Amino acid sequence: MCRWMGWLGQPVLIDELLFKSQHGIVDQSLHSRMGAEPTNGDGFGLGWYGVGEHPALYHSVAPAWGDANLRELAAHIESRLFLAHVRAAIGSPVQQTNCHPFRHGNWLFVHNGFVGDFRELRRDLMLAMEPDHFAAVEGSTDTEVVFRLALGLGLEQDPVRALEHTVGLIEETARRRGREPMVQATFGVSDGESLWAVRYATTGPARSLFASSVASTVRELYPDNARFARLKDDDRLIVSEPFADLPGVWEEIPQSSAVRVAPGGVFDQSPFAPLSAPVP
Amino acid sequence: MCRWMGWLGQPVLIDELLFKSQHGIVDQSLHSRMGAEPTNGDGFGLGWYGVGEHPALYHSVAPAWGDANLRELAAHIESRLFLAHVRAAIGSPVQQTNCHPFRHGNWLFVHNGFVGDFRELRRDLMLAMEPDHFAAVEGSTDTEVVFRLALGLGLEQDPVRALEHTVGLIEETARRRGREPMVQATFGVSDGESLWAVRYATTGPARSLFASSVASTVRELYPDNARFARLKDDDRLIVSEPFADLPGVWEEIPQSSAVRVAPGGVFDQSPFAPLSAPVP
Amino acid sequence: MCRWMGWLGQPVLIDELLFKSQHGIVDQSLHSRMGAEPTNGDGFGLGWYGVGEHPALYHSVAPAWGDANLRELAAHIESRLFLAHVRAAIGSPVQQTNCHPFRHGNWLFVHNGFVGDFRELRRDLMLAMEPDHFAAVEGSTDTEVVFRLALGLGLEQDPVRALEHTVGLIEETARRRGREPMVQATFGVSDGESLWAVRYATTGPARSLFASSVASTVRELYPDNARFARLKDDDRLIVSEPFADLPGVWEEIPQSSAVRVAPGGVFDQSPFAPLSAPVP
Amino acid sequence: MCRWMGWLGQPVLIDELLFKSQHGIVDQSLHSRMGAEPTNGDGFGLGWYGVGEHPALYHSVAPAWGDANLRELAAHIESRLFLAHVRAAIGSPVQQTNCHPFRHGNWLFVHNGFVGDFRELRRDLMLAMEPDHFAAVEGSTDTEVVFRLALGLGLEQDPVRALEHTVGLIEETARRRGREPMVQATFGVSDGESLWAVRYATTGPARSLFASSVASTVRELYPDNARFARLKDDDRLIVSEPFADLPGVWEEIPQSSAVRVAPGGVFDQSPFAPLSAPVP
Repeated sequence: MCRWMGWLGQPVLIDELLFKSQHGIVDQSLHSRMGAEPTNGDGFGLGWYGVGEHPALYHSVAPAWGDANLRELAAHIESRLFLAHVRAAIGSPVQQTNCHPFRHGNWLFVHNGFVGDFRELRRDLMLAMEPDHFAAVEGSTDTEVVFRLALGLGLEQDPVRALEHTVGLIEETARRRGREPMVQATFGVSDGESLWAVRYATTGPARSLFASSVASTVRELYPDNARFARLKDDDRLIVSEPFADLPGVWEEIPQSSAVRVAPGGVFDQSPFAPLSAPVP
Repeated sequence: MCRWMGWLGQPVLIDELLFKSQHGIVDQSLHSRMGAEPTNGDGFGLGWYGVGEHPALYHSVAPAWGDANLRELAAHIESRLFLAHVRAAIGSPVQQTNCHPFRHGNWLFVHNGFVGDFRELRRDLMLAMEPDHFAAVEGSTDTEVVFRLALGLGLEQDPVRALEHTVGLIEETARRRGREPMVQATFGVSDGESLWAVRYATTGPARSLFASSVASTVRELYPDNARFARLKDDDRLIVSEPFADLPGVWEEIPQSSAVRVAPGGVFDQSPFAPLSAPVP
Repeated sequence: MCRWMGWLGQPVLIDELLFKSQHGIVDQSLHSRMGAEPTNGDGFGLGWYGVGEHPALYHSVAPAWGDANLRELAAHIESRLFLAHVRAAIGSPVQQTNCHPFRHGNWLFVHNGFVGDFRELRRDLMLAMEPDHFAAVEGSTDTEVVFRLALGLGLEQDPVRALEHTVGLIEETARRRGREPMVQATFGVSDGESLWAVRYATTGPARSLFASSVASTVRELYPDNARFARLKDDDRLIVSEPFADLPGVWEEIPQSSAVRVAPGGVFDQSPFAPLSAPVP
Repeated sequence: MCRWMGWLGQPVLIDELLFKSQHGIVDQSLHSRMGAEPTNGDGFGLGWYGVGEHPALYHSVAPAWGDANLRELAAHIESRLFLAHVRAAIGSPVQQTNCHPFRHGNWLFVHNGFVGDFRELRRDLMLAMEPDHFAAVEGSTDTEVVFRLALGLGLEQDPVRALEHTVGLIEETARRRGREPMVQATFGVSDGESLWAVRYATTGPARSLFASSVASTVRELYPDNARFARLKDDDRLIVSEPFADLPGVWEEIPQSSAVRVAPGGVFDQSPFAPLSAPVP
């Protein structure tokens, strides 16, 4: 179990959202309200688009709430698009190469959830990867495998469709091995321009996922809030858990759906369903 | 807020008590029931008496629940006397030199609690230390200052009396500076032969502290428990929180008191009250 | 490039050999004389047989020369059989799961050297592993792959023969992929009773490897040395580099050979040559 | 022994100077040519002026050459003024609070060298600090004490004069304690506008220190070098060791002198000599 958040909008100092928000993601790392695991202290990751080639990554195995470097970076890096992730390890080691976001070229990927029976399926799934992606695997999480499968299935062309194929492939692999398939997921994906979010579970309720409302709505609801007054109509947050208990500010992303957020106020929603994967 | 435990008795593999006990200290690091802070993920420390000169220390800044090295050590080190501590940092950095136990020669020291207004009193308290102890300070916690003050006030001759002088000195220093004095503490001390525990708060309730009952009592209460069947009459645990909800196994150590546990079934209890410190 | 040492003999405090020896392995971590890389600061590992089930592991990403925990453990753990390893990373991340020794049941494994073109061969080699071993891979080094291949090829029955098959398999895999095969290696292996060491390179000189002479020879050469006076005839050290410039104390293990050291003064030497691996 | 570098000039991606320069500071961390210690693997620090309030800090206890986060930050952070430091610990623990630069408000401070007999003088020197600075000490290095003494002696008004008083105070303190005084130092200081560098040793040769020549000189010497072609006349580097063996590019800063570099091509040099400190 993990928690993640994504921001797309005007450039902001990252700690505005990471540390200064009530019940923000670092606070959630210490005591989440909605998650299966209340503590997410097994590593932190931040990926941001800014200067330099490709997005930058900061991966730390220290709990987010006590990481002095994270506080420094958040207070001194400004970004118009970033993804942050706090991790609660379930089985795989606490190490930087297991921290989200994962990156390939200009793409970032985060995940809250798990692949059921991953240990048993790992070999089959890694064989299904393209050899170049196999060679690039550095950690031991299910998420890195999901990401590299999706890259081989066209993530860079159509991320939602590629994830539908990836989920389909994982579910089929589980069935072929006589296992009950289970993909439990909210995914966050970005290419530096758009931010996609997916919410899905093979069975039962999926992990929670919310998007912030259009800025004008938020400002109208809370006309006296100085922070909200600065919000622009292009600004959007995608979060595992709402930052604070503000009615009207958060829209739940329905299960089995995907959204795309992009500059100019784009907020597209579409259904998400596993597709059978082309034979690799 | 922190949690600690001490064992004195027959040699045991440390993980018997650290990991295999229901609601043991590592479990408490993730979700304490009685503490002010439910998560104690800001470092771990273990001090044990065994082979080699003086007690050994293992200090880690990783949360106890995810520290692979800690699991290895606990599963492969046997000791008849050890102290373990999980830390929830309140202000001072998460670094190995701030992890308990602190050590001087053959002595180990752990602390759950805090010195009120420590930042304001730190200079006065460090000046009150003996110069050699000042030079030896490596970290920035209140506990290390308490320990080194107590060493200068005779901890190695009479640990309880030295701590009474130390607490008196701290409270006087606070008053002299116009502060409301506050020492909130359970202390654990050992010289490799005895284990002392102190429970005290200047005002209000002190942090919780418990000792395990005499082994024969425990065995009678739970005649079918294989673990308890192995308990010998000399075996004693001192803990911040009872390991499990077993009525009759735990005796609360009263506030403003000290206990000494030693081989041969020694379990001495005495009152604890601040003493005015000799002028350093 | 890395450095390792193994001890089999009377129980010793580990720091006798790790820190107190002139030009010992921790000293080598800071400035090796014989290696391709003079600094081996990318992690440390220690595996020892003692109390508890199976051998214990301590893996650290801090440089060996500055790791306070390592000094503590070495000064307080006694062992009759241990392996220590300092790492100079070549390509793979500095993380605990990439630190040697690797362990499976009662077996430990260390490696100085590399598999040529590992990134290109990794997928083929991991497919050649038994599925259970594939699932158990936690890190991203070539050594972990070599170890798990060897386990599938009978390491637990005949470690030298299994390593001959493993090296053969790796070289064949390289050739099949149109690569010049290259296995550069000194391997250290133990089951808790014997200590095996292998020295081999596909082409050119292999990494250096030495065994200490029979204790009686050492004592005769240096009759006034108090440390050597304590040596027993069963005691043997295997090292990447001689600990000090003591003529007569060290015997070079010839290239393309394997030795087995065991209690009772056993010191068997045999040739080592790649064998074609049975099709997995 | 340590190494440091400072940049003041046009905004650059930090890795241009940190990783891409031949024999740059990260390379020096692995094998310095001029230092007393060839390896500087006991922590790294970077302080930069950019967005956000005050300069930012990144402190790491991993060796600079293997720190994935450092590579990420350097490749994605642009700054017109930054200080970087690699540490070789001499006595004090390897921990983030002992990493340079130290910071107070808008000021950064780095140091290569040491205070002789620091352990014996530490108490006296800390007592000489202003109480607020005493309270703010987080680590255990001599450098943090030097910095906080200098702050109390007017660093923010006149950094060179304050350091002259600080060095005088330290030397007097040593003499008063019957010790041979020894301050061995190159200091780097910045307020975000200027960059000051000091080179001094109480006796014998001081640590090496160099400034880059005026950009036009560098370009004339190496007309075909694309990197140098981009240099502007305001750009200046201050370094412990020249980055590469380029004759003409580096000017040694004489012993017992201070320089100030500032925008507009300012490069002022002045003598540096200890002053008796006002009684605190």
